[in-house]
Amino acid sequence: KKIVTLAGDGIGPEIMAAGLDVLAAVAPKINFDYEIEAKNFGGAAIDAENHPLPESTLNAAKNADAILLAAIGGPKYNDAAVRPEQGLLALRKELGLFANIRPVQIFDALKHLSPLKPEIIEGVDFVVVRELTGGIYFGEHTLNARDARDVNDYSYEEIERIIKISFEIARGRGKKVTSVDKQNVLATSKLWRIVAEDVAKSYPDVTLEHALVDSLAMKMITNPSDFDVIVTENLFGDILSDESSVLPGTLGVMPSASHAANGPSLYEPIHGSAPDIAGLGIANPISMILSVAMMLRESFDETAGAQFIENAVNKTLLDGVLTKDLGGTASLSEMTAAIISNL
Amino acid sequence: KKIVTLAGDGIGPEIMAAGLDVLAAVAPKINFDYEIEAKNFGGAAIDAENHPLPESTLNAAKNADAILLAAIGGPKYNDAAVRPEQGLLALRKELGLFANIRPVQIFDALKHLSPLKPEIIEGVDFVVVRELTGGIYFGEHTLNARDARDVNDYSYEEIERIIKISFEIARGRGKKVTSVDKQNVLATSKLWRIVAEDVAKSYPDVTLEHALVDSLAMKMITNPSDFDVIVTENLFGDILSDESSVLPGTLGVMPSASHAANGPSLYEPIHGSAPDIAGLGIANPISMILSVAMMLRESFDETAGAQFIENAVNKTLLDGVLTKDLGGTASLSEMTAAIISNL
Ligand SMILES: CC(C)[C@H](C(=O)O)[C@@H](O)C(=O)O
Ligand SMILES: CC(C)[C@H](C(=O)O)[C@@H](O)C(=O)O
Repeated sequence: KKIVTLAGDGIGPEIMAAGLDVLAAVAPKINFDYEIEAKNFGGAAIDAENHPLPESTLNAAKNADAILLAAIGGPKYNDAAVRPEQGLLALRKELGLFANIRPVQIFDALKHLSPLKPEIIEGVDFVVVRELTGGIYFGEHTLNARDARDVNDYSYEEIERIIKISFEIARGRGKKVTSVDKQNVLATSKLWRIVAEDVAKSYPDVTLEHALVDSLAMKMITNPSDFDVIVTENLFGDILSDESSVLPGTLGVMPSASHAANGPSLYEPIHGSAPDIAGLGIANPISMILSVAMMLRESFDETAGAQFIENAVNKTLLDGVLTKDLGGTASLSEMTAAIISNL
Repeated sequence: KKIVTLAGDGIGPEIMAAGLDVLAAVAPKINFDYEIEAKNFGGAAIDAENHPLPESTLNAAKNADAILLAAIGGPKYNDAAVRPEQGLLALRKELGLFANIRPVQIFDALKHLSPLKPEIIEGVDFVVVRELTGGIYFGEHTLNARDARDVNDYSYEEIERIIKISFEIARGRGKKVTSVDKQNVLATSKLWRIVAEDVAKSYPDVTLEHALVDSLAMKMITNPSDFDVIVTENLFGDILSDESSVLPGTLGVMPSASHAANGPSLYEPIHGSAPDIAGLGIANPISMILSVAMMLRESFDETAGAQFIENAVNKTLLDGVLTKDLGGTASLSEMTAAIISNL
């Protein structure tokens, strides 16, 4: 199996190394054979090749069985002509990674980190499914000195395929889909709601409910245990999935997967490149390591391997091995070693 | 002074009556002379005149010195050809109510209602300033069977005037503006950030910081006391201002004001029409009553009158007079009577 790694910027290279160490440690236990191809991406690729998504990176990604991405961006590129994020948006589009999946769960050992009262986060376990290659992200953008315009487009098919994915996921979980839109204002949201109703007909075992994005932004925090699968369009998904990290109280333990209709999936932490702590060896590698677990499960059907990693992470946290962001003193390498020894 | 009242739907008429009772009680204390003109609006206007914003309502609103709106909408109108919300959007546009102001504060007596830990909400006191007549709300909407489109437009002037208002408000408070955009993706956000920087030059005494909407959706909950004035465009403001109600843990005590460049301002609770409890006499009138206070201060310069009402509300809550949504048993009329007796 060929895995392309995009370490990117800031803490990216450090946490990628940690993720790969864990993969190397788990692979023999599950007889998983793989090779790694590391490519430039984001700011690092701007530095090395003058482009955030060089041709050779894109080609390697297209031919991979799965892609691991660590993190990109940083203040260094704020005034760059082409920015690291543009590489990410182009990669999503080129690979057709339309389905972004972000599980929201709270580790027992980290419950105290949540800004929310314990009774509110009790039983929280949902997944945010975000459409990732359509909407206002990829419509025409016009910037003049005196005005600007963005265009938000969605087709029936684009909506249908992401709604279907959310129903498939819900079928294997709590059997409830919360579809989020702004149906009282946007045409794309009116279509979204129609399509959600159409798709729901094929899933009589799954309950569909609709929510307006403003109201959901509130309920996701006040009643988080009400949700099973939340599905929404690109921009709302960007906002809501970041907002959902409020529940665990840390970005440091949240992985994500992005899937295409055909071709490789991409796995990455939901946090950024944390340039302020880059190179200090204190970054928290858990989101990256859990992204490796998601990859094993979702791209390679290696459920046992994924479970080994997830259990090891859980045990390590329960043992009180915590990086600085989690309130502890463990270094990145101490945390990684502890997880490996718990495998 | 002529005040036009739009009681609307659901609990609207009950809470409007409560707000007007409080106004009638405070007026003699501050020598405030006024007359009320009640008009149909929203669902009630659809029922009575087949249109959510009848001509005569619009004309009365245009000629008012201030407008009080209670709440509109309800399941009854879900399949109506014209919906109550369209009346609201048309009213905002017709009156040019471009600046929506939502103060976020936490009453001592209600701290326990917040889903957040006490240390997180300590010292929370900020204002959300939302652009209300531009952006994707008012761009072209195209809905076909197989695709849909919304257009998001902003001009330099539209952005400039709302940013200016946020700086003016910050100047009278904590002297900090947090401007929220999605500058790494949207052209309108790129323009937004340029204009914010331009306006900031005229306010050397106020600090400007920028935040991406996804990141702000998180920080508003994890670090809410960091903010003084948060300014953003229409759609982001819709989401973020509803989200901010998570902090007090109730929608029931949050007023809002909407201002135009010229002409009357409009004051309304941020919550909806709560059709499930309409007519039961148990609705919480406080958002409406505090909207009356905002009107006295912002439209009529009656600071003392506003303060009387705010103090009376505060005392009533501290006395433990609480409606059902706040965890108590007081009826709407008991709560209103208690506030009046505390004036
Ligand atoms: C970097 C940025 C363009 C990106 C997005 O908005 O999609 C990020 O916020 C994310 O959520 O992956
Ligand atoms: C009713 C709806 C159109 C409205 C909006 O989105 O502006 C409401 O949510 C609000 O915030 O006042």
